[in-house]
Amino acid sequence: MTPTRLHGPVVIVGAGLVGTSVGLALRGHDIAVCLVDPDDDNLREAVSRGAGAGTAAADPELVVVAVPPRSIGDALVDALQRWPRAVVTDVGSVKVLPFAQVEASGADLSRYVGSHPMAGSERSGPGAASATLFTGRSWAVSASERSSPHAVALVRSLVGLCGASVVELTPSDHDSAVAQVSHLPHVIAALAAGQLAMVSDRALTLAGPGLRDVTRIAAGDPDLWCQILTGNARQLYGPLHALRHDLDQLLDALSAGDAAVVEELLLRGQRGTERIPGKHGGTVSTAVGLLVQVADRPGELGRLFADAGASGVNVEDLRIDHDPSRPVGRVEVVVRRDAADHLAGWLTDAGWLVQR
Amino acid sequence: MTPTRLHGPVVIVGAGLVGTSVGLALRGHDIAVCLVDPDDDNLREAVSRGAGAGTAAADPELVVVAVPPRSIGDALVDALQRWPRAVVTDVGSVKVLPFAQVEASGADLSRYVGSHPMAGSERSGPGAASATLFTGRSWAVSASERSSPHAVALVRSLVGLCGASVVELTPSDHDSAVAQVSHLPHVIAALAAGQLAMVSDRALTLAGPGLRDVTRIAAGDPDLWCQILTGNARQLYGPLHALRHDLDQLLDALSAGDAAVVEELLLRGQRGTERIPGKHGGTVSTAVGLLVQVADRPGELGRLFADAGASGVNVEDLRIDHDPSRPVGRVEVVVRRDAADHLAGWLTDAGWLVQR
Repeated sequence: MTPTRLHGPVVIVGAGLVGTSVGLALRGHDIAVCLVDPDDDNLREAVSRGAGAGTAAADPELVVVAVPPRSIGDALVDALQRWPRAVVTDVGSVKVLPFAQVEASGADLSRYVGSHPMAGSERSGPGAASATLFTGRSWAVSASERSSPHAVALVRSLVGLCGASVVELTPSDHDSAVAQVSHLPHVIAALAAGQLAMVSDRALTLAGPGLRDVTRIAAGDPDLWCQILTGNARQLYGPLHALRHDLDQLLDALSAGDAAVVEELLLRGQRGTERIPGKHGGTVSTAVGLLVQVADRPGELGRLFADAGASGVNVEDLRIDHDPSRPVGRVEVVVRRDAADHLAGWLTDAGWLVQR
Repeated sequence: MTPTRLHGPVVIVGAGLVGTSVGLALRGHDIAVCLVDPDDDNLREAVSRGAGAGTAAADPELVVVAVPPRSIGDALVDALQRWPRAVVTDVGSVKVLPFAQVEASGADLSRYVGSHPMAGSERSGPGAASATLFTGRSWAVSASERSSPHAVALVRSLVGLCGASVVELTPSDHDSAVAQVSHLPHVIAALAAGQLAMVSDRALTLAGPGLRDVTRIAAGDPDLWCQILTGNARQLYGPLHALRHDLDQLLDALSAGDAAVVEELLLRGQRGTERIPGKHGGTVSTAVGLLVQVADRPGELGRLFADAGASGVNVEDLRIDHDPSRPVGRVEVVVRRDAADHLAGWLTDAGWLVQR
């Protein structure tokens, strides 16, 4: 038996960043795509970028609902009723709520399989879309007990055609997982960044890259994230209460001067960072960073990376350390531990100032 | 009147990362440096790296105390007594506590000026030291009302010789500022990372770069950070309580389904990110990112940055987007907004897949 393959036509409801990117990816496989969006400008731009046609197919094989979180439930029910033979999925950040909305409507649950690509951007709209948005990313497929095997297989095929990797999770397991690894970090970043309203400009001159990292994702769209967080409130309570418990413990320990408790909390944090998967499933701790001094002028980074490339060592990650006032900066070049000595020697020989 | 210039000799107490780096920077200006460290291995390594001599000068002009936070007070008092003509500074992360310890000892406060370079590393020890560790960084100089003008000028000269920029702050203003821009973010990162102990491996496969950014600095040494946080507990209470207040407000709003309050907290976070100074005093919002698809093999980054360099556009920041399973990744190249179109066109012409 060959695996089910999506042939189309596919209707995409919502021509924003994700919907248009799905259209571009499927058009790259010559699958017929029709786009639907109440916003004429979005629709026109998505069509002009080649993400699909602007008129809906009469009998699609698959419908992808890619609308803002607050509209997903209605759009799913509408799609299941309007196209009675189509498999329907959505690409929203929570999965229990839309399932419950579809179930409450009495619509055909066997044709619905929720999904969630772990890709996005601080940008939005069809102009930010790309055929490669999902390449190499995880894409959760959240079948319910009522989903038909055919519907699940078709959504898995969609994920594969978009270049992503399927992670199968029940709606409830999915929502619990994203509460922990995505929604809680967003809340934490937002609360951390929110404290900066009280900080003087002078104090901010002492800020380093750590503050920027902790708060970066808080720049995301507040309206979108509000819909995500309120849509997953039930799964967020646990992690948020655990966070508050630890915060209270830290406050008490600082009040009491109980250094052992403070250090234990910091140690738990340090161990937590070691659990985050790195590139290709490796862990961050197998990689080490070299700091290289780079003058702040065009071409210097190019020269550095050309030299690094010539060493034969693969660069896993890198980070430019901003500097507040000088025309020189440091680039952290992260490589596998067993390649660090070789690269450090190579770059030093090429005239770079390298620090371990 | 010419500004006071440090001539030496300088005694550095503590041959760790910061002390050895100060020694290397001063030796680069041919200033005589003597290193003191109870740990023979540290001392030997620092001396062998050229950071100074291993025997203390009889009559130093300046003493730099660069020992772990818990030992700073004693080391300062000891230095002020042992070298009765020397100006003495320290490089610790808090400034009120060591001042109070020196004051309580009855030592000569006119010769003491605390300071704090905003530079460091997840690494430690003399092996990680570098003459350029402080280049382009802020370095707080925290004179007290009792500090003599000569002592302040000499410490300012030290900062300049190390390539850093002086930020003058009273000890109390300093501690309040670092509580907000450094210590609170570290606590938040540690608490966020600590929650990962409860997360399943499967859930972690859904983690993206956001989780890594929020938790990165929590990898720092728990013992060192425990000393810093307990040493600045009084200034940390306010920001930590404000954080808890906002967390409680968010929990209440999520319980009550009050989306307006949730969104307001997210909006405050978004505004907060805009307050963080970017490179060269610019703000992050004047820069835009281009996403470029890069194959995961040696030399590809070199080719990309050589092409970017040839465009004449200066790269402000960059970030590799890890991908969990595929041999392709995306590099975000951050440039000034007014240079983005030019660079995007240039790279596209050179055959790169570029996304705005």
